[in-house]
Amino acid sequence: MKAEIITIGTEIMLGSILNTNVAYLSRRLMELGIETVYHTSVDDDYERLESALSLAMERVDLVLTTGGLGPTDDDLTKEALANVTGRALVADINMEEHIKHFFAYSKRDMTLNNLKQAMKPEGSEFIDNPRGTAPGIYMEWHNRKIVLMPGPPREMKPMFENKVVELIKDDHIIIVKSINTSGLGESTLETQLKQLDLSYPNFTITTYAGSGSVEIKVIGRGKDGLRLERESVEIVEAISREIGEHIYGYGLSSIEDAIIEVLINNKMKIAVCESVTGGILSSKLTSVPGASKTFDRGVVAYSNDAKVEELEVTRKALETFGAVSGEVAYEMAKGLMKKSKADIVVSTTGYAGPDEDSSIKTGLIYICITAKDSHEIFERIFSGDRDTIQERASNFALWNVYKFLNKKLTSIGM
Amino acid sequence: MKAEIITIGTEIMLGSILNTNVAYLSRRLMELGIETVYHTSVDDDYERLESALSLAMERVDLVLTTGGLGPTDDDLTKEALANVTGRALVADINMEEHIKHFFAYSKRDMTLNNLKQAMKPEGSEFIDNPRGTAPGIYMEWHNRKIVLMPGPPREMKPMFENKVVELIKDDHIIIVKSINTSGLGESTLETQLKQLDLSYPNFTITTYAGSGSVEIKVIGRGKDGLRLERESVEIVEAISREIGEHIYGYGLSSIEDAIIEVLINNKMKIAVCESVTGGILSSKLTSVPGASKTFDRGVVAYSNDAKVEELEVTRKALETFGAVSGEVAYEMAKGLMKKSKADIVVSTTGYAGPDEDSSIKTGLIYICITAKDSHEIFERIFSGDRDTIQERASNFALWNVYKFLNKKLTSIGM
Repeated sequence: MKAEIITIGTEIMLGSILNTNVAYLSRRLMELGIETVYHTSVDDDYERLESALSLAMERVDLVLTTGGLGPTDDDLTKEALANVTGRALVADINMEEHIKHFFAYSKRDMTLNNLKQAMKPEGSEFIDNPRGTAPGIYMEWHNRKIVLMPGPPREMKPMFENKVVELIKDDHIIIVKSINTSGLGESTLETQLKQLDLSYPNFTITTYAGSGSVEIKVIGRGKDGLRLERESVEIVEAISREIGEHIYGYGLSSIEDAIIEVLINNKMKIAVCESVTGGILSSKLTSVPGASKTFDRGVVAYSNDAKVEELEVTRKALETFGAVSGEVAYEMAKGLMKKSKADIVVSTTGYAGPDEDSSIKTGLIYICITAKDSHEIFERIFSGDRDTIQERASNFALWNVYKFLNKKLTSIGM
Repeated sequence: MKAEIITIGTEIMLGSILNTNVAYLSRRLMELGIETVYHTSVDDDYERLESALSLAMERVDLVLTTGGLGPTDDDLTKEALANVTGRALVADINMEEHIKHFFAYSKRDMTLNNLKQAMKPEGSEFIDNPRGTAPGIYMEWHNRKIVLMPGPPREMKPMFENKVVELIKDDHIIIVKSINTSGLGESTLETQLKQLDLSYPNFTITTYAGSGSVEIKVIGRGKDGLRLERESVEIVEAISREIGEHIYGYGLSSIEDAIIEVLINNKMKIAVCESVTGGILSSKLTSVPGASKTFDRGVVAYSNDAKVEELEVTRKALETFGAVSGEVAYEMAKGLMKKSKADIVVSTTGYAGPDEDSSIKTGLIYICITAKDSHEIFERIFSGDRDTIQERASNFALWNVYKFLNKKLTSIGM
């Protein structure tokens, strides 16, 4: 089955917003074994909308649209579908009652325009929208399936997941396995996967880059569920053998989620002191629900004074080695270890630029990870602009914290 | 002039990456007075690429493409353009030499495939690519302009700005003014702008939501430069009168840029202590180049112990009012003010959820901003998931820091 996604809205055409709907839907369609072959975006212009819809219905089997279902005069997606399919647009009495009740219940004024939302092309069905007033539309027409969904992602996503998936999936079995990796760039990872030369005709293997991690998705599609399951296990095992040291989980989300999970399970506390990463490490760790159980504290010691006063870094180390040095990274971590109750402390120092006649190489980063009885110091040079260097240094630190924790817990037999 | 943007690449069709190219180009075209009416994305399939290109050349005056210019067999954009325009694809001897030199100079092996990049459709011109090996292509054909650019944003953007803008702009004068606002949502702002009822036929007024700020762009296009300039001033003044208290700058970027600029100009130091925002405030401020001149330190006092030990918050305040209270926000800020050399300290405390049988309302946030002789405490309830609440609380804090600074500096006549 081949699909086209049409996203409708002036904000998209002006570049005011990133088109996250199309990325979300493409990814989900692939996971359902449906190939997306065209994306089209148009503004609220009726003629262009109709021509895009008409073209899509000629060239694919499944058309998904988002946007243009609201109550205003600019919202014309249903009108376009009615015209293209030669069906009349008719009022649905049940939906009218539903909308009237909704407004009465929420004590809001209803305008006549709102009743537009009770109209649908003859022969189509409404799709419930629990998060908003615009219902979706499902229609089958000459062996094609057409689904109209609202534009706001918070309405579109639940509608897609709860209703649309059921309507568009075929009787194939789909198996999705996910491998979470960190510490390898997406292109390196892709090259390594290619070299593995996994030839399973029923499977697609793709990568999705996140912040500091890359997710490998192994997606199988076929009729023989047992065979799919067996082959998916073979593929995941082959990949794990090849890049095992870069895998932090299966079906997890971010690397910080994995770290917080390990810490909580082992009743350990973490503290963070940052210079070059300026709070990013702390904010990533504290973004995980439940982080308060394990995140003790963070110190953003940006100035030399702050390093001395907050972390007992010695003036001598700052003068002898400079603030950007492994020695200072070590003293920072040791200082915070001493004053906090943390079991593990990570520190960052470095120079993220941009250049200001600096004698320090832009992108040079030191990271120190300490536990009560051991520590490791890492030196790396990252390229990119200021934000990129800060982000890469944070991800590098997180990945090494994860490895450090695992080594530690393995060595003490946990 | 009407434009279509075609983005080519399998990653886009799989939803592996967000299509940032199309948003960037749409926005820039609008600033050049060119209306983008269609976005199309296709994968590397030759037939679909050719049909998309052919269709675009029927329906618009300007076609921009990104992607498919590389050396591999999947890179077929030039082939498609040659076919659609009925031109031969010919090797350019100068470009061949250039590519050979490039590989010799960078001591990399050149494959025969690389010479594909020296081919162009007859009658087209190469566009320099200083950031990569794939040159762009410019062609005029039956009153249409066609521009092929590489896919990676770091190659595409400089090519667009340095070369393409010159090729596609017409003889109209374009004026762009930018107003930076914070503290108002995008939809509220749009409603207020609509109510102003500014009817200037040569001008478009649009909004772009950033993180914690909304930028208003006032874009004029016409032949009479003096009139455009006068009208742009009238529009900016009218908007400033209406929403003046929410404007932090003109032509600036983020609210944190504005804060760091004010602090540096007035030789002031800032320190930050965060509970609920977990390091986001620190990381936003330290993301600004030059922040080290003014950012003294940050403390992420997530646990109660950290609040007491790092910030001298009293156990009494924690017990009487709870960690999520204006009183604790005040003690946090006061404590950091005492130990740091900062002129201004901002603190955050609150509860970002998700619910864990908490007795505290999810989204309840307290912020305290202190200077040597004054302080302000803010209470707000934000909705959304954990990340959204943390982000909104940070933006709310930054906007109030900006206002606090401005009030302070105005009152002492600076």
